[in-house]
Amino acid sequence: MKRRDFVTKVGLGALAGGTLSAPAIKSAHAAPKVLKMVTSWPKNFPGLGTGAREFGELLEAASGGRYQVKLYAGGELVHPLKCHDAVQEGTADLYHSAEYYYKGKSISLAFFTAVPFGFTANEMDAWLLHGGGEKLWDEANADFGIKALPCGNTGSQMGGWFKKEVNTLDDMKGLKMRMPGLGGDVLKAIGATALTLAGSEIMPALQAGTIDATEWVGPWNDLAFGFYKVAKYYYSPGFHEPGATLSLGINKKFWDSLPKADQQLFRACAYATNYSNFAEYNAKNSASLDTLINKHGVKLGEFSDEIFVAIGEASKDVLADAGKKDAMAKKVYESFIKFRQEAVGWTKLSDQNYANKRALVTF
Amino acid sequence: MKRRDFVTKVGLGALAGGTLSAPAIKSAHAAPKVLKMVTSWPKNFPGLGTGAREFGELLEAASGGRYQVKLYAGGELVHPLKCHDAVQEGTADLYHSAEYYYKGKSISLAFFTAVPFGFTANEMDAWLLHGGGEKLWDEANADFGIKALPCGNTGSQMGGWFKKEVNTLDDMKGLKMRMPGLGGDVLKAIGATALTLAGSEIMPALQAGTIDATEWVGPWNDLAFGFYKVAKYYYSPGFHEPGATLSLGINKKFWDSLPKADQQLFRACAYATNYSNFAEYNAKNSASLDTLINKHGVKLGEFSDEIFVAIGEASKDVLADAGKKDAMAKKVYESFIKFRQEAVGWTKLSDQNYANKRALVTF
Repeated sequence: MKRRDFVTKVGLGALAGGTLSAPAIKSAHAAPKVLKMVTSWPKNFPGLGTGAREFGELLEAASGGRYQVKLYAGGELVHPLKCHDAVQEGTADLYHSAEYYYKGKSISLAFFTAVPFGFTANEMDAWLLHGGGEKLWDEANADFGIKALPCGNTGSQMGGWFKKEVNTLDDMKGLKMRMPGLGGDVLKAIGATALTLAGSEIMPALQAGTIDATEWVGPWNDLAFGFYKVAKYYYSPGFHEPGATLSLGINKKFWDSLPKADQQLFRACAYATNYSNFAEYNAKNSASLDTLINKHGVKLGEFSDEIFVAIGEASKDVLADAGKKDAMAKKVYESFIKFRQEAVGWTKLSDQNYANKRALVTF
Repeated sequence: MKRRDFVTKVGLGALAGGTLSAPAIKSAHAAPKVLKMVTSWPKNFPGLGTGAREFGELLEAASGGRYQVKLYAGGELVHPLKCHDAVQEGTADLYHSAEYYYKGKSISLAFFTAVPFGFTANEMDAWLLHGGGEKLWDEANADFGIKALPCGNTGSQMGGWFKKEVNTLDDMKGLKMRMPGLGGDVLKAIGATALTLAGSEIMPALQAGTIDATEWVGPWNDLAFGFYKVAKYYYSPGFHEPGATLSLGINKKFWDSLPKADQQLFRACAYATNYSNFAEYNAKNSASLDTLINKHGVKLGEFSDEIFVAIGEASKDVLADAGKKDAMAKKVYESFIKFRQEAVGWTKLSDQNYANKRALVTF
């Protein structure tokens, strides 16, 4: 999931920038503060657009109508991938987007969404909230006048759709696959051709044979696009985005002007949205996976160890290179690597070991 | 973690029932509504007591001081395991506890905390928020006049501390292990002796040889108790509580009296607390695990497949029996089993496969 993916020519122009539902209670003595929120997603796009909407509705309700969020779909007020600029410049007060879209402004921002061979959603949350991650995130955004909070998570993304089986590293060489960003850099390092295509361009490219394979998000979002009609092999695990954090960006001057209690209110609504959004991804992915397999005859594949080791080694290099780009990237990379070592150890003993052993018994 | 565990004789009597920090903003025209919250935990007990406090502070701040939460440690106002009764009877407005403590009132309540071979934290959240779980939870609590929301999660609990290695099913037979609840029933089914001991009673029992093994929570909470001084083998994975949900219980009459917007406020604060609390457990468990191994020389063990299969088969029977107890239990059990099938499939392709393959490369 990346870059221009959510810019679809169809529909965007017709989307009205209306306010969300009217607040249930209005403060007796103050007019509601209307906040402009730009997003990178089409309005109500499952999980992404709905996550943005959920935050806005929650803030309106929980504040008793003191705040209203005016939601703009990607492309409506600004380009879907210019949300960070828009909030920096004050064109909008808030954004709902993903930090890695803005790695051109600071490569360190990529670490606050997802990186190849990086954190799962749970590990990311542990790092951000209780491992020093948020402080580094604040530093990375300080030059841009932005305060960001986690506000959604897609969970682990799938490895992608392939027209033919891939078993060996040789099968990956020369393969034309749609995968943008750092994940694409990793694919190139192992000899594949990585292409960047917008979401709406993927199906035509698969059908025309311009690409042999593609990744997108996971069963819920992938089912909607219908990739199973063209590519029957659905591989796991994804290596490129093992849990992509969606972010709420807040104009820093506005944030600093808020009473401490209202900062807590914004934080509570962002956290609550993250919690609910990630749960929704897991629930819908579970159900959609079942549909893909049992209704559409999708064949599940698992990347071989040979392929995954090569991808892992290349990921290590790509991340280390990113960590050398500038002083901020170095700080973030070092914190990421240190926290990763402990987090991987705990994941192994907890969810990972449990899930592996649980599979020994069929319920 | 269960039953009377948080009743310690030391300290509880001396805990003052003071209010939390003063709200940052007071509503100009209404006195703050002071809510009594009873808990099952000693004040500020890591993760549990702090989770309760976090919710209270968040609600006070986010409501601009319209609500204040007066927090009572376990035993202060009512017995730590009588929180459900206290809110039902109106002695308190809220509780922070775990539903399985009240399975004597309705066995179905156990499913909303954790059950042997049940949901991970992520799967539980998916079920509760987007898989019909909350509706069933409401039904299970309807007779008791309680509305509950998820408000914390310990994550996957460890398998426990053992004085000697356990390799075969025979090693488990006759073993005296501290494990209360449904997990204890499972241990009994495979020939072990399961004992129920309060948290404060575990160390003396381990030292005196009254028990050979014990479970508690995970590295963070277990390190504090110092079990590593008496039992060197720390086994994973835990089967009995693969992600224990902590709950906010709300007097239903009070809940129904709230404006819809304030219900959203309570929900946002409960979800935000769950999100932050689970992240804290993961962060602190990661760091504490490192301390246990590298500072205290703890030896990690992994349950053999033979042992885990026996435990899994017994868990299946224990849960099926629970599902036959009454009409409510049947409904909850059936929903749990159905959702579990899909959720296990998605976990396998996402976090589980990713964590397994990620381990092939050392960072």
